[in-house]
Amino acid sequence: MTPGQAPRRVVIVGTGLIGTSAALALRRHGTQVWLSDAAPAAAELAADLGAGQVLPAAGVPGGPADVALIAVPPASVAPVLAAAQRAGLAHCYTDVASVKARPLAQARDAGCDITRYVPGHPLAGRERSGPAAARADLFLGRTWALCPAPETAPAAVAAVSALAAACGAEPVVTDAATHDRWVALISHAPHVVAAALAAQLASPSVPPEALQLAGTGLRDATRIAVGDTALWRQILTANAAPVAQVLAAVAADLAQAARDLTAPDTGDGDAAGDKQLTELLDQGRAGVARIPGKRGGPARAFTAVQVVISDQPGELAQLFAVAAAARINIEDVGIEHSPGAPVGVAELSVRPDAAGPLITVLTDAGWPVRR
Amino acid sequence: MTPGQAPRRVVIVGTGLIGTSAALALRRHGTQVWLSDAAPAAAELAADLGAGQVLPAAGVPGGPADVALIAVPPASVAPVLAAAQRAGLAHCYTDVASVKARPLAQARDAGCDITRYVPGHPLAGRERSGPAAARADLFLGRTWALCPAPETAPAAVAAVSALAAACGAEPVVTDAATHDRWVALISHAPHVVAAALAAQLASPSVPPEALQLAGTGLRDATRIAVGDTALWRQILTANAAPVAQVLAAVAADLAQAARDLTAPDTGDGDAAGDKQLTELLDQGRAGVARIPGKRGGPARAFTAVQVVISDQPGELAQLFAVAAAARINIEDVGIEHSPGAPVGVAELSVRPDAAGPLITVLTDAGWPVRR
Repeated sequence: MTPGQAPRRVVIVGTGLIGTSAALALRRHGTQVWLSDAAPAAAELAADLGAGQVLPAAGVPGGPADVALIAVPPASVAPVLAAAQRAGLAHCYTDVASVKARPLAQARDAGCDITRYVPGHPLAGRERSGPAAARADLFLGRTWALCPAPETAPAAVAAVSALAAACGAEPVVTDAATHDRWVALISHAPHVVAAALAAQLASPSVPPEALQLAGTGLRDATRIAVGDTALWRQILTANAAPVAQVLAAVAADLAQAARDLTAPDTGDGDAAGDKQLTELLDQGRAGVARIPGKRGGPARAFTAVQVVISDQPGELAQLFAVAAAARINIEDVGIEHSPGAPVGVAELSVRPDAAGPLITVLTDAGWPVRR
Repeated sequence: MTPGQAPRRVVIVGTGLIGTSAALALRRHGTQVWLSDAAPAAAELAADLGAGQVLPAAGVPGGPADVALIAVPPASVAPVLAAAQRAGLAHCYTDVASVKARPLAQARDAGCDITRYVPGHPLAGRERSGPAAARADLFLGRTWALCPAPETAPAAVAAVSALAAACGAEPVVTDAATHDRWVALISHAPHVVAAALAAQLASPSVPPEALQLAGTGLRDATRIAVGDTALWRQILTANAAPVAQVLAAVAADLAQAARDLTAPDTGDGDAAGDKQLTELLDQGRAGVARIPGKRGGPARAFTAVQVVISDQPGELAQLFAVAAAARINIEDVGIEHSPGAPVGVAELSVRPDAAGPLITVLTDAGWPVRR
């Protein structure tokens, strides 16, 4: 296989959401894919969905595949990898578990050939699981972390990197410990924080009437806490130290905020507690601003132009036609419109350099434009 | 005014998101609405959007309105109420601040006529603020808490209750202290928790590469932390004790989880720490399950039609032109587009009865439509 090209032959071990999605993405490149799962029905369903063929009991027809992608829970990676290597499924191996250091250590302990193993983690997922939820575009534009060990062969890294790229992801190479610290911060600790917040709502002392007041903010803030407890306990214990560090820091900030709020009011607006609370809220805003937007870049990469529109069919069509005539690509659009109101506001997101020209052509065409 | 019917004449003091949205909702009942804001441009913009007329400097034409709705930040409620009562703007008064006990106490201290004042709090909002973000359906199906003081006149409660109902909300009467405990749990403490989580991302020790790994889960969990710091500090300090109680409890759970994760592994899967972590995750799931689903609102009222589009100028214009030619009004639109991908998905929200015809015309015009 030429590095950089999609692998020609791949085995997927574990046809859940991630494994099947990768298979579907690879099939678009004409890759030959064999599917295997501890639950044969799952592999068959994935095959029915066009993800490839079920792996014969006799092994991979024609000899080892280019890559075997092991898509199983973290604690199963090492034993499944060991079995796959014993069976000689592929020339090199990768996995998709969201923790990397412990599975790698376990693979070493299990006597796996680490020169042929590239620990991996595609940063993609859905709230739904199983092959039926799989999507060929699940990895599109997402980061796919690769955490080779010192002894991992460069050719194996190149092959797995090509697989990730063929799935539409951006391969990023780092080491397992760094990866684990990063995901503790952006995924694992947030799960526990959301759970701890939501747990407050579970108390019998909280009447249903109180929850009737809940808005979308609370739902969003706690949504990730619905994840499967057994899987998450596995993830968290496998990444215990980095997760614990973040949790302890958040706990300390919250305990301090509680103390600040209940400190005797000095009547002085510049009280130390008030300053600390302000700082925490400001830091929170700064942190949110650092999270990249859905296009991968910061959300503020685009400039919004607001146009007052009437609630008539064709109104938006005219707006877009004017922009299109000026060769201006509208990257995103939102409509602020109060049902029943005669007018609304269309918010057009464009590249910053297109905002001026867009305002000009829209104004010239008679649209009421606000910046 | 007959209780239960929409008020005939209303003054809105503060034409931000909430005040203007209430005005738009009341206008649909034919209510005469006067608009006032410390920033005259805000009242004028609200008037431009169809929310009513700007309140003349000379006062309400024709004498006091039925209700004056004071939609200003918590710390401004008492002084604005006092001024409104001195000016005789209305027969009764309400506010929309998300804390109730302290503004009520401040109103008493300011010598306001509490018999005519019904502290209120519509549980509705958006991340965006200002009159341009206002929507007549903002309160549809949402709870609107009313917290009358013992001396508040029943007629005033009836009038404000009718106003809330006219906005499409469900009025719920409780006392200020109970209200404040409930919102601490479902809104105020969650804001601080999200901020504390997001604050961890703001540290210079976190490289941008780490944040590239972030998914929608982190974005959702921290989204509420973007709120205005000054306003939130006001809200939190005005509801300090109930908020601090929740924060202290969450902090204790997180600190315990951190200790559980770093406790020496006994190799026993039934270790106490493991049990506590499992319990916290399970309680989190139980808490999320108690949050009622979306009620009312546009998300339910409209049907989404998904169309695969290419990333070319003019693509959306053609889409809207086809819809417009069929006299189909697109109520809202969102674009899902993965970076670098040649195609994206436009999600068009239409009235349920328009979904079928829209799918037909788009399909006939050669668009790949998904439902």
